[in-house]
Amino acid sequence: MNKVNIGLIQHSCSDSVGKNFDKVLGMIASAAKKGAKIIATQELFKSRYFCQHESYELFKLAEPVSEKAAVVKALSSLAKKYKVVIVASLFEKQAEGVYYNTTAVLDADGKYLGKYRKMHIPDDPQFYEKFYFAPGDLGYQVFKTKYADIGVLICWDQWYPEAARLTALKGAQIIFYPTAIGWLPADKAEYGVRQHDSWETIQRAHAIANGCFVAATNRVGYEPNPEKGKEGIEFWGQSFVADPYGTVVKRASVNKEEALIVSVDLDVIASKRVQWPFLRDRRIDSYSALYKRFDNEK
Amino acid sequence: MNKVNIGLIQHSCSDSVGKNFDKVLGMIASAAKKGAKIIATQELFKSRYFCQHESYELFKLAEPVSEKAAVVKALSSLAKKYKVVIVASLFEKQAEGVYYNTTAVLDADGKYLGKYRKMHIPDDPQFYEKFYFAPGDLGYQVFKTKYADIGVLICWDQWYPEAARLTALKGAQIIFYPTAIGWLPADKAEYGVRQHDSWETIQRAHAIANGCFVAATNRVGYEPNPEKGKEGIEFWGQSFVADPYGTVVKRASVNKEEALIVSVDLDVIASKRVQWPFLRDRRIDSYSALYKRFDNEK
Repeated sequence: MNKVNIGLIQHSCSDSVGKNFDKVLGMIASAAKKGAKIIATQELFKSRYFCQHESYELFKLAEPVSEKAAVVKALSSLAKKYKVVIVASLFEKQAEGVYYNTTAVLDADGKYLGKYRKMHIPDDPQFYEKFYFAPGDLGYQVFKTKYADIGVLICWDQWYPEAARLTALKGAQIIFYPTAIGWLPADKAEYGVRQHDSWETIQRAHAIANGCFVAATNRVGYEPNPEKGKEGIEFWGQSFVADPYGTVVKRASVNKEEALIVSVDLDVIASKRVQWPFLRDRRIDSYSALYKRFDNEK
Repeated sequence: MNKVNIGLIQHSCSDSVGKNFDKVLGMIASAAKKGAKIIATQELFKSRYFCQHESYELFKLAEPVSEKAAVVKALSSLAKKYKVVIVASLFEKQAEGVYYNTTAVLDADGKYLGKYRKMHIPDDPQFYEKFYFAPGDLGYQVFKTKYADIGVLICWDQWYPEAARLTALKGAQIIFYPTAIGWLPADKAEYGVRQHDSWETIQRAHAIANGCFVAATNRVGYEPNPEKGKEGIEFWGQSFVADPYGTVVKRASVNKEEALIVSVDLDVIASKRVQWPFLRDRRIDSYSALYKRFDNEK
């Protein structure tokens, strides 16, 4: 047995970045005291999900993400103090006009291991991310932490089997998905159950296909639409961890703030991958058309 | 609305190839009379699942698969008579020593549209397919039939998101998976539910990721192990159709012979793909490492 406790920090956000940040620092400390060793935030945890509308003003929420950045230093101190790995989703400013949806990884001794920049950027009504974020340019990555080799993908990436596969092939034992997904009130009654089920199902499938763990952290709470007279988003929570068979080991509530702490046995990866040796039989000679957007033209 | 009725022929097999074949011809005719328009067999439907053990004798079950082949002519007549598309899984002999796990497609006027040769070949205890089948050499394909553009993959292919993606990118509206999967009696109590759930989940995820329908036909019944003193396989049936949201529209029984007839609306593909435009945002510039078996070496 090679057990590790994952901690997923699911919470609501107010319009005060300072208060949100303090709350999450507190929740991380509390989860650490309860035994969590690798702790992941939800997507863009410091603020409300500002991509609900397009506003030039909101770029001021972005900040540098590097070893020397203030936010990284604060998280690093916390990681070191509690001997925990922290996976933190941030709004990154690289330069004037160059912004990313980024996740930083701090090791259990406080060391900054690097960052992942969201590769697949959505753009849908109330999820106007192409306005805010340049597509990630760092590729798929694995961070060798004290407790496990972990990959990080972010929200919309979760709909792409290619992203999960490439991260698993780098050696990820657990793939983390900081997320901000919810229901538009007009859709919820008719499509709500199905939308959530699609979301959980495809991530469970990444665990099955790759023989690794998947851990998704999502936010909770209703966030109003800044545009007058329009409805906001009800984030659906339900952060979860799936094992290499795609079984949901544990799932958080729909609407409560909580640190979901989940014990997983990394040795299951080895047994699963020999029982169902999918990686062995990949037809790597036949995948070239994955380079194409679509493939129905002669 | 652009509705089409799918028919999946789920059955048990005796050791008489002739009787199995006649039974399936009858079940196809019966499904056609009930309104099925695209009818798919289970994997290697003419015989018991012979890959349970390795025997040189069993290569004699293989037969040519071409427009002129006897089996194709018989299926073609049936397709023409009932104006149905037939997707038929066969043990193909190309030459002495060259055999494939192949699926032929007949259009509703009886025309032979071509064949798909299983690309991903398993090899596990009681599923010794690498002994019998050369890996497919025809790549991923779509067949433009009278009722829909369909893709065909076969059993073990279903664990590979790459295969589903490549078939969808060719334009498949429905991906068919003729299948032979079941429980080893020693495993069933402990792992049976989870194994089946993994199988269904990953195929539902292909439907979600690609915004297409997935239709899997599996066999039923217990087939004894030809090797003395060893247990056989209990095939788990549960043929199903999933829609582009990954919802199971209809699922057959665990242990009964039946033609599962499922009405689907192909127009859902268009609405799903604009609501959740995953294909638009694929990072085709970043997928090159999918060519690698694994990617943890410098």
